[in-house]
Amino acid sequence: MLWIMNPSDTPRINGVVESILYVDDLPRAAAFYTDVLRLVPMVGDPARFQSFDAGAGRVLLLFKRGGTLQPTAVPGGVIPPHDGHGPHHIAFAIAVRDYEPWRQRLLAAGIAIESEAHWERGGRSLYIRDPDNHLVELVTPGIWPNY
Amino acid sequence: MLWIMNPSDTPRINGVVESILYVDDLPRAAAFYTDVLRLVPMVGDPARFQSFDAGAGRVLLLFKRGGTLQPTAVPGGVIPPHDGHGPHHIAFAIAVRDYEPWRQRLLAAGIAIESEAHWERGGRSLYIRDPDNHLVELVTPGIWPNY
Repeated sequence: MLWIMNPSDTPRINGVVESILYVDDLPRAAAFYTDVLRLVPMVGDPARFQSFDAGAGRVLLLFKRGGTLQPTAVPGGVIPPHDGHGPHHIAFAIAVRDYEPWRQRLLAAGIAIESEAHWERGGRSLYIRDPDNHLVELVTPGIWPNY
Repeated sequence: MLWIMNPSDTPRINGVVESILYVDDLPRAAAFYTDVLRLVPMVGDPARFQSFDAGAGRVLLLFKRGGTLQPTAVPGGVIPPHDGHGPHHIAFAIAVRDYEPWRQRLLAAGIAIESEAHWERGGRSLYIRDPDNHLVELVTPGIWPNY
């Protein structure tokens, strides 16, 4: 068998594993993502972060704003500083059949639907705010060439 | 066939579709993610954003910082305001066999490896900075219960 191209020469990125939001009140934000969006909490540290299984092998990380301005020593190394401000944006995948159930569930939970959009490729978006004013979007397939 | 539970009652989140970073210089940041991390550019608007296929059906969105402070009208609706500051954090998935090739590729491109970590579950992380000082992590599987 002849390798025309050495795979080592072409390392690839296989999607985003960790998507991050910085929050002022970690328990308040964690409650929103657990109770309203129904993500499953994984490991966390009340002073610093909370991780969630966002589905499809992907992770949402909430960090306490200002809590990661210094390098963080972990057993296997050091995580360099990072932090963030502002009403950030993130979009979660939902199935077409779950669009209306999500809409009803959010309204029942007292969450305002700030906007909705219908995209040329057929996908739909629903926009809400989390407790830190981050713009959270729930999107059905049919938005991007690859989703 | 009897449905014990109506699927409509339990809408699910199926992972994160769009992960966002805000940048000061859109062409500079787009060049980094295209040339160094080799993400494939999709649609964009030089004044406002650039989208990338991040692999695995997921999307990285770079927004011009300050360019989305007002609602954005699109053909099918309105995208509410959002924005962000600070050296944000994001982590991309890579295969175990691509760890060392990525390390070599980044060094060859003049990108400093700010830190590396080895996690209890066996995964490895490599940390670099993008042109906006965002903390970019490349991670092999074996970090989280679900990755």
